[in-house]
Amino acid sequence: MRTNLNIGLFGFGVVGGGLYEVLNRSKLLNATIKSIVVKDPLKKRSIDSSHFSFDKRTILEDDEINVVVELINDSEAAYEIVTEALKRGKHVVTANKKLIAEHLDELIKLSRENNVSLLYEASVAGSIPILRNLEEYYNNDTLSSVQGIVNGTSNYILTQSNKGIAYQDAVKQAQALGFAEADPTLDVEGFDSKFKLILLIKHAFGISTTPEEVFNFGITKLRERDVRFALEKGLRIKLLARAEKIGDQVVGFVAPHFVSPDQPAYGVNNEFNAVSVNALFSDRQVFYGKGAGSYPTASAVLSDISALQFDYHYEYRKSGNDSLSFTDEFKVKIYASSSNENSLKTIPFVESDEFYRSADFSYTTGWVSFHELRQHLKSSPSDLSIIIVEEPLKGIDTNLDRIEENKTTFASV
Amino acid sequence: MRTNLNIGLFGFGVVGGGLYEVLNRSKLLNATIKSIVVKDPLKKRSIDSSHFSFDKRTILEDDEINVVVELINDSEAAYEIVTEALKRGKHVVTANKKLIAEHLDELIKLSRENNVSLLYEASVAGSIPILRNLEEYYNNDTLSSVQGIVNGTSNYILTQSNKGIAYQDAVKQAQALGFAEADPTLDVEGFDSKFKLILLIKHAFGISTTPEEVFNFGITKLRERDVRFALEKGLRIKLLARAEKIGDQVVGFVAPHFVSPDQPAYGVNNEFNAVSVNALFSDRQVFYGKGAGSYPTASAVLSDISALQFDYHYEYRKSGNDSLSFTDEFKVKIYASSSNENSLKTIPFVESDEFYRSADFSYTTGWVSFHELRQHLKSSPSDLSIIIVEEPLKGIDTNLDRIEENKTTFASV
Repeated sequence: MRTNLNIGLFGFGVVGGGLYEVLNRSKLLNATIKSIVVKDPLKKRSIDSSHFSFDKRTILEDDEINVVVELINDSEAAYEIVTEALKRGKHVVTANKKLIAEHLDELIKLSRENNVSLLYEASVAGSIPILRNLEEYYNNDTLSSVQGIVNGTSNYILTQSNKGIAYQDAVKQAQALGFAEADPTLDVEGFDSKFKLILLIKHAFGISTTPEEVFNFGITKLRERDVRFALEKGLRIKLLARAEKIGDQVVGFVAPHFVSPDQPAYGVNNEFNAVSVNALFSDRQVFYGKGAGSYPTASAVLSDISALQFDYHYEYRKSGNDSLSFTDEFKVKIYASSSNENSLKTIPFVESDEFYRSADFSYTTGWVSFHELRQHLKSSPSDLSIIIVEEPLKGIDTNLDRIEENKTTFASV
Repeated sequence: MRTNLNIGLFGFGVVGGGLYEVLNRSKLLNATIKSIVVKDPLKKRSIDSSHFSFDKRTILEDDEINVVVELINDSEAAYEIVTEALKRGKHVVTANKKLIAEHLDELIKLSRENNVSLLYEASVAGSIPILRNLEEYYNNDTLSSVQGIVNGTSNYILTQSNKGIAYQDAVKQAQALGFAEADPTLDVEGFDSKFKLILLIKHAFGISTTPEEVFNFGITKLRERDVRFALEKGLRIKLLARAEKIGDQVVGFVAPHFVSPDQPAYGVNNEFNAVSVNALFSDRQVFYGKGAGSYPTASAVLSDISALQFDYHYEYRKSGNDSLSFTDEFKVKIYASSSNENSLKTIPFVESDEFYRSADFSYTTGWVSFHELRQHLKSSPSDLSIIIVEEPLKGIDTNLDRIEENKTTFASV
């Protein structure tokens, strides 16, 4: 039995306009957009202004509307709309990762109390159905890690950087192509990736985390020296969002990484996204596709709407598992570079590995506690680049002496 | 509510043994293997012989067993086991693509009549959850094509060929590594890929096809000249299983293809599999992973078992859609080569494009009706290689004059 869907759409930007077209062009049964609410009455849009209303109550107070699709930019306003819609017994489909990441538990609770669905596949990696796969297919306890490139803007910029184009030029290119906003901070500093990571952690491991708990640092401090270092070693620099089980703890962070050609992220370039799932027995699965843009995001929204026809809702089967907890206490191997050698000396290494100095800059590699690194980066000098080295993360209690015995396997960056 | 699962396992080969280990090592709740039935009492196995029975009735007649996991090689025997299990009200999980492809409608009917699930994710592309995604996520009508490398053996052999290793040597290597059987016909002639394609067509487009309807040709007739041709053009030869919508018809076939670096299949090497899904608005999604082997296949079986705990069954929502039909009447661009120029002259081209002759061999490219090509290949000379050129398929009624106007876009192989 298919449920009849009357949609109230908030927002008619790139994604909202795409959805409108998608819904009109696909023969999806029993789903019609009844009302569209936008903010600015004067803005020129692709369809006639008679289609729009400007008061959110037009949708929220319409009892015939049973699905709210929220596609506006303002996450505060989105919070008001989404909570109100859930309370009024309407299903909600949204692409707003910030909204969900910041209010995850509250929104899940509200949707359960009101017996409606809250779906947000479009909020993580656009058209890649990663949440649905974590929720439905990897629904047992064998997942060991989820990681990926989940921000198209920073990936586009890094792809240019990896070719030797200067950071500021790459940003301008991305802006000219519409891949980056005027202020790209959320993307290039890893905040956008972090919001998505929080959703991945919830659906992969059943754990709720907050934007404060999960640490991110981005690509703005990378310099040409770092790109050159990577190229010489046959590596590329990629901004990865990572979540992994270490024993009975889960760690998660967003940071630039050196990636070698045998890693799936190596070949993921420009605005593309990819998410890699490691499970105990299935080895590595990679999901690759367009992470952003009008149609890819609209198509993810469409799949959620389509699922509502069959009364689909996330079950959060892995939640409530008290045996796992989130921590930032683990060891990670890093590369750090600076034009000022002294900037490197203050890094709280638990074990140093390489050190290099030239007239222009110095670099060093070694193991740090992630928690201490995080504290250190709060007040670190501006000319300090940190990049994660491709080495397995270690539990905080792992004896590095023991690691040292296998040094041949990890000494090379 | 999780259903309690008592499993009866048929077969303890590579996958069965892997599943046994997976189930023991994962903490999957409420699922236990109650009985294991194998054929050969004398074969040495990794666990004690006391675990095994040799009569299928041990499982089939045990009312406490509610799930049959069928992992034997013999598809005739598997048919007996699976039909009997379904009739007795037991859920069935199987990795046997041949069994399902040959008896698809009958098995679906049986599972519905007896109100039990028949799941077979492991039968297509090992650990890649492609059926589940087609079934659940791409459950609307916007899919335009599904194609992929779904046979690890032939892909391993082609990967070696593309490096310049002779076909027979590549086969021997694959056999030595356990990737190919003593008689690799099913893999290298594309039959195994075809069985999988039949399942993809069912879940992507809702259409039932038979192994007789879907045409396959493989890689045994490829020669060094063809590999050299590909390398010179910067292409690779890959065995692709393809299903596409052309208007309101669906076409499907397995054949070697020239693949350019911007196609996802280009970078899928050795024993890996990848399936690419094109939908009207989501652009291209690629699912990449290990297509075969003990653990990857076992993990797909495990995910199906895990889904049974939540009473999952395929809904075949796209089936019963009478507006789509299967056909082999469409046009495709091919490359054909032979040491004997006359072999090329008999090919029923509807439009020729290039022709090349040297002392050693000749080749030609052009458009053919797939239906006529299929008839032609039934009695074609042994020294004739056919490879599909990377061009959009055309409906049989498409006017090739119209195509010719855009010749610059498709003339180059």
